[in-house]
Amino acid sequence: MSILVLGTVALDTINTPGGTRRNIIGGSASHFSMAARLFTKVNIVACVGKDFPRENINFLRSKGIDLSSLSVQEGKTFHWQGQYRNDFNTAITLKTELGVLSSFKPVILARQRKIKYLFLANVDPDIQSGLLKEMHKPKIIALDSMNYWIDNKRKALLGLLKKVDIYFANDKEAISLSGQKSLIKAAKSLHRLGAKMVLIKKGEHGALFYNGKDIFLLPAYPVEEIVDPTGAGDTFAGGFMGYLAKVGRADSWAIKNALTYGSIAASFNIEGFGLDKSARLRIEDLENRILKFKKCILFQG
Amino acid sequence: MSILVLGTVALDTINTPGGTRRNIIGGSASHFSMAARLFTKVNIVACVGKDFPRENINFLRSKGIDLSSLSVQEGKTFHWQGQYRNDFNTAITLKTELGVLSSFKPVILARQRKIKYLFLANVDPDIQSGLLKEMHKPKIIALDSMNYWIDNKRKALLGLLKKVDIYFANDKEAISLSGQKSLIKAAKSLHRLGAKMVLIKKGEHGALFYNGKDIFLLPAYPVEEIVDPTGAGDTFAGGFMGYLAKVGRADSWAIKNALTYGSIAASFNIEGFGLDKSARLRIEDLENRILKFKKCILFQG
Repeated sequence: MSILVLGTVALDTINTPGGTRRNIIGGSASHFSMAARLFTKVNIVACVGKDFPRENINFLRSKGIDLSSLSVQEGKTFHWQGQYRNDFNTAITLKTELGVLSSFKPVILARQRKIKYLFLANVDPDIQSGLLKEMHKPKIIALDSMNYWIDNKRKALLGLLKKVDIYFANDKEAISLSGQKSLIKAAKSLHRLGAKMVLIKKGEHGALFYNGKDIFLLPAYPVEEIVDPTGAGDTFAGGFMGYLAKVGRADSWAIKNALTYGSIAASFNIEGFGLDKSARLRIEDLENRILKFKKCILFQG
Repeated sequence: MSILVLGTVALDTINTPGGTRRNIIGGSASHFSMAARLFTKVNIVACVGKDFPRENINFLRSKGIDLSSLSVQEGKTFHWQGQYRNDFNTAITLKTELGVLSSFKPVILARQRKIKYLFLANVDPDIQSGLLKEMHKPKIIALDSMNYWIDNKRKALLGLLKKVDIYFANDKEAISLSGQKSLIKAAKSLHRLGAKMVLIKKGEHGALFYNGKDIFLLPAYPVEEIVDPTGAGDTFAGGFMGYLAKVGRADSWAIKNALTYGSIAASFNIEGFGLDKSARLRIEDLENRILKFKKCILFQG
């Protein structure tokens, strides 16, 4: 079953101890798609400006992404400029130019309204709600957000939380939205606030999942050389949602596998700048690394 | 088989967001023993001052610890005063009074020289080396240290590393001693430097183990309410070494179980001040929590 992702397609300028890349393709929808495309058809709902290079559009299309609802508008593409120093867990934002994103009103096709797997990547919660209302009975609704919306549109975000199947948050966001002090308490609190499933991403420290019944703990695959962690969370979500959409179920078995695919997709993403690594990924690459990963986990076999 | 632990028996004053405890029993050897005693006989090699309360000695003895080589010397007991704010991963040292520890010269009994399981907890590397020379063919030698010795007695510590079976380090120590940037590279480098096995403890983020062949990743048990993390690393080591001493082997199967017992022992330790929780632990408590823990791990069963 195919997936609809609402998010950003951006131009990123990224500086790390290993180098700088200017105006490379970034954005939550792009990163999500690179992992999700390995499992199913992905439809992007986003906007770019007239300055967005034609070759980038062609590149996304060459990866099998449906761009019917990627609108090209008068103005500049959303541009994020960020830096990582030695702590790859924390991005330092140097500049954010919203451009056409500041007046983004998603419009989707009639056929896209029937898509059953929906990922609401980090944009204004009102835009997320708006799109959700357009959809016709989605089966799995996943939500991501960021501290800016937790601080400035808390009520809208909490309203949305009640409607979603899975809420993706990093550790800081989970603590901030829940007001709890430990991650396990935060996960339980976010579940009480309405999210049927909660996935807290801890970067190089792995992830914690809670669905009101099971707690799953997932260490991160030990990457030796991190190049650029931008988009790791969206890549994780892409692998996770892609897997669920492919198998068409969301029981504990499917969730465990989805978490593994998501986590391993993210481990590849951070080994290259932007989409460099994830755009070249094949499903066999994920599967081979999962085999290695399983050997590292206590209690396995 | 019994265990010999060289370390400290201290008086700790600890301040956390949850309260303050003054002059409670602390020190690496005390924390280590509370976990290791669940598996085998533990012999402490340490010193205290004349001010060390008789009731503390009686308490340790009541837990079955052999105190033949705990020397009581003229002077004051080693006293550590520390604080945790919201980040329980980082202790803020307010005061360190070495007292009798500054002139500590371990002396052990003839029968203790034959003990096969040795844990060299964090003291001056020269004292650790001195005791190691006294021992008669130990089977498993484990080593812990701290940044102070990495910075000030690096050469002695690196010399010691070549002689040990397992080196326990926290993430900052592993990075600092190896000079590497990622933990997996640090583990591999410390192995090349001579430690047959390397265990990197990441506090609430779990642990990473490397033995030149296998990498094991271990998330931490999700504790809802951390009270006092002091001694968690030594408790981990106590559970780990205790298990190995009990089963008398150190293959992958034994190591995996030892890591689990160590990690779970530490998860109890941090739920109370000082030894409050770990002194009351029974082996069944560890086993019950291990069952819960296994259910949280992906790929289990």
